[in-house]
Amino acid sequence: MARGRFITFEGGEGAGKSTQVKRLAARLEAQGLEVVTTREPGGSAGAESIRALVLNGEADRWSPVTETLLMYAARRDHIERVIRPALARGAWVICDRFADSTRAYQGAAGGTDPALIAALEAHILEDVRPDLTLVFDLPPEVGLERAHARAGAEMRFESKGMAFHQRLREGFRAIAAAEPQRCAVIDATAPMDAVEGAVWTAVSERLAVHG
Amino acid sequence: MARGRFITFEGGEGAGKSTQVKRLAARLEAQGLEVVTTREPGGSAGAESIRALVLNGEADRWSPVTETLLMYAARRDHIERVIRPALARGAWVICDRFADSTRAYQGAAGGTDPALIAALEAHILEDVRPDLTLVFDLPPEVGLERAHARAGAEMRFESKGMAFHQRLREGFRAIAAAEPQRCAVIDATAPMDAVEGAVWTAVSERLAVHG
Ligand SMILES: Nc1ncnc2c1ncn2[C@@H]1O[C@H](COP(=O)(O)OP(=O)(O)OP(=O)(O)O)[C@@H](O)[C@H]1O
Ligand SMILES: Nc1ncnc2c1ncn2[C@@H]1O[C@H](COP(=O)(O)OP(=O)(O)OP(=O)(O)O)[C@@H](O)[C@H]1O
Ligand SMILES: [Mg+2]
Ligand SMILES: [Mg+2]
Repeated sequence: MARGRFITFEGGEGAGKSTQVKRLAARLEAQGLEVVTTREPGGSAGAESIRALVLNGEADRWSPVTETLLMYAARRDHIERVIRPALARGAWVICDRFADSTRAYQGAAGGTDPALIAALEAHILEDVRPDLTLVFDLPPEVGLERAHARAGAEMRFESKGMAFHQRLREGFRAIAAAEPQRCAVIDATAPMDAVEGAVWTAVSERLAVHG
Repeated sequence: MARGRFITFEGGEGAGKSTQVKRLAARLEAQGLEVVTTREPGGSAGAESIRALVLNGEADRWSPVTETLLMYAARRDHIERVIRPALARGAWVICDRFADSTRAYQGAAGGTDPALIAALEAHILEDVRPDLTLVFDLPPEVGLERAHARAGAEMRFESKGMAFHQRLREGFRAIAAAEPQRCAVIDATAPMDAVEGAVWTAVSERLAVHG
């Protein structure tokens, strides 16, 4: 059985990632593929319990370095219990945020030493690396306005200041620029159907979907 | 103001660490020193919430690698919010378990790659290293019997098999053998008052307590 494909959705708050994860999954399932949609932080029982610690509470509840370790603890559990087994049985895994969110939130925006993040990627991800990453790009004011309209709990990162969200956007753009083979930048200001089309173009061109 | 001293208590389940932390603190306070007693995992609000995840539940709730990351997340919060500020104001900090427990539980007994643990020590501990570590040594059957008699929640590690606890003891002994300048091995099978005396001898001889 061939290993499945691993697709990650990345970008700031309210960019439309979760909306488009569902749409891409439906399109791939229509091709007869087994699709596993999941999310980070979370995606396994243990990782969801870590998510509750990280995404709730005051903006300064955790320092960026502590957050980095919590995110990687959640990620390791998620990889061991969900992602790696799914890929091994040939499923396509679509993950709503993954390791690039740590680079951007805790690294570029939070100031965590990139050497720590690189060491964690090497030891914790091992061979579980995305085949394709869709980087949803939009001005942070637009994304935060969408996210606020949606409301809900888990507001810890949204509650950080606008300077944080500007560094975050630049962090994601820098990742995409540094790894163009893996990453496709998606204009997330476009209407939902146009974004869906851009995602499908990237996936079908880069991952040779057999319809 | 001179930096305070950092003393850690290490060893397997039921070795008598928590009992002796209190006795040492009382002796040091009697010398007029400011003493902060604390524990790991835990010791700060955030770290205590991580402790609850790590010490409860089934033995295989977390893999050793995930545990390592959770322990270091808790440790980082504890260092930032409690240990480093206390040392900076000149207090003596006595900590019931610290980084050697990760080397022994997740490393020697759990099988986590020592290179990951070394990378975390370098990035996360930085300059916060114990001046003295008391390694409580006793046969695991004796320690587990004491711990079971005490009962309570937080049984996750106690519920691991005897082979785990044998590797754990060997792991702690190997740390003490590798770093004899920092570590003193304490015979934890002795009666409580004799253990208290051995701890005091190690602390007063090695750390030049001014009475
Ligand atoms: N292209 C779009 N144009 C306008 N609104 C959109 C678009 N895509 C999604 N939205 C709306 O914006 C809000 C946020 O979308 P969504 O939850 O998919 O974003 P997200 O990137 O997953 O956010 P978060 O990072 O907070 O999880 C939702 O109310 C959604 O309906
Ligand atoms: N020297 C000793 N001889 C006999 N019993 C002891 C001795 N020291 C402690 N005990 C008893 O053993 C039990 C465990 O002691 P304690 O809680 O101090 O160990 P610990 O090393 O902190 O254990 P844990 O690793 O589970 O936290 C307690 O009931 C305590 O009263
Ligand atoms: Mg979302
Ligand atoms: Mg104890």
